[in-house]
Amino acid sequence: MGVKRVHFTFEQIGQIESCFKEKFGIPRQPGLVKEARAVLRLVPPFSQPEAVRGLEAYSHVWIQFVFHKAVCKEFKATVRPPKMGGNKRLGVFATRSNFRPNPIGLSVVELEKVEIVNNQAVLHLRGGDFLEGTPVLDIKPYLSYSDSVKEAKEGYGCVETPETTVIFTDEVLGDLSQAEQSYPQIRQFIIELLQNDPRPGYQKDPERVYGCHIYDYNLKWKQREGVAEVIALEKSL
Amino acid sequence: MGVKRVHFTFEQIGQIESCFKEKFGIPRQPGLVKEARAVLRLVPPFSQPEAVRGLEAYSHVWIQFVFHKAVCKEFKATVRPPKMGGNKRLGVFATRSNFRPNPIGLSVVELEKVEIVNNQAVLHLRGGDFLEGTPVLDIKPYLSYSDSVKEAKEGYGCVETPETTVIFTDEVLGDLSQAEQSYPQIRQFIIELLQNDPRPGYQKDPERVYGCHIYDYNLKWKQREGVAEVIALEKSL
Repeated sequence: MGVKRVHFTFEQIGQIESCFKEKFGIPRQPGLVKEARAVLRLVPPFSQPEAVRGLEAYSHVWIQFVFHKAVCKEFKATVRPPKMGGNKRLGVFATRSNFRPNPIGLSVVELEKVEIVNNQAVLHLRGGDFLEGTPVLDIKPYLSYSDSVKEAKEGYGCVETPETTVIFTDEVLGDLSQAEQSYPQIRQFIIELLQNDPRPGYQKDPERVYGCHIYDYNLKWKQREGVAEVIALEKSL
Repeated sequence: MGVKRVHFTFEQIGQIESCFKEKFGIPRQPGLVKEARAVLRLVPPFSQPEAVRGLEAYSHVWIQFVFHKAVCKEFKATVRPPKMGGNKRLGVFATRSNFRPNPIGLSVVELEKVEIVNNQAVLHLRGGDFLEGTPVLDIKPYLSYSDSVKEAKEGYGCVETPETTVIFTDEVLGDLSQAEQSYPQIRQFIIELLQNDPRPGYQKDPERVYGCHIYDYNLKWKQREGVAEVIALEKSL
């Protein structure tokens, strides 16, 4: 006898423009890279200014979104979190993996500004972990009295990242000054990004050149225990 | 020119059995009534024990669910939160109202126990604000380092509830002893429930008898500033 499976359909209310243009490099949780910037443009009819009236009174908001590049063909009950070395299996509901039965993401971010552009609501967000183009399903104010649980104990979430010094080659320093004209916070953003060590736990080759696409730049670096060296910041095509 | 509207379909992974059998009486946020109990029964194929492996290491979890009794026919950009007296309009995204474009609820609750019954995963939850029969879309571990934002400032969320003493008539005390045989925590649950003053802000008639359905009981009470008097606890049919 089959079990009745129940479905629900939701509509995109907006879309994210993010400093993260590809999955690699995105911090494993929001809040870890404070200088990460994102713009959430609401879409009609949800974008009318009335819909965000009063939201500016809150410093932080929840964004519920779709992991649009993490679609699973079939249900997998366990995942191997890369940060745990890729060899420990945990139940999917015991992780915040993108690969889950319903690919709904949940991130608390700083609400920097609510802007109305051509009569459409636009939110400026900081500290997010969103991939470019992320579809958004809901925005909710962050309420400390219910959302901040002081006594919460956690099992596997808090994998220690050792302290990392980020250094730049002379050539990169020149490119960085250029880039800062468009993105004043980009130096601090790169530092925070690499301090979080985006390399998967099972692949930590100090000779390997890693790269990721941030804003309209390709960032390249090498990373060993304690030091990340940025070796290129090239305008992407 | 029309705007392309994008939809996503998700599947129910489980369903809630709650102490709250109707909407009236449900606290306005989770965590306010710590003794509120709920059981989340996962459904196949998501209910396999592997899917919750490791979850017991966490004290708290996020439940993402559907406000299944709050379906809006059309988008309304503003709501009037009842706790604010029902006469202040706020943008729907500046509230946690159930009546939102995508009726997806978000609650952090205490994970009391992970149980495997007939090879199906069942979670025992405390402090929830779920209506009986709530369909669940996702379970995620609560991660303090990203989810607990100490510096968050909030605008309208924290409406003060004055201190309330809860008293029981003699007749109710007898019924309460009976009820405690099935639900040992029911007295404390009722006290917390009424201390949160479930009455809407615009309707505070001290002579009115309020009622709500909890577990398999009808609870009846009167409430004035500072005192709630329970006048009946009747077995529901």
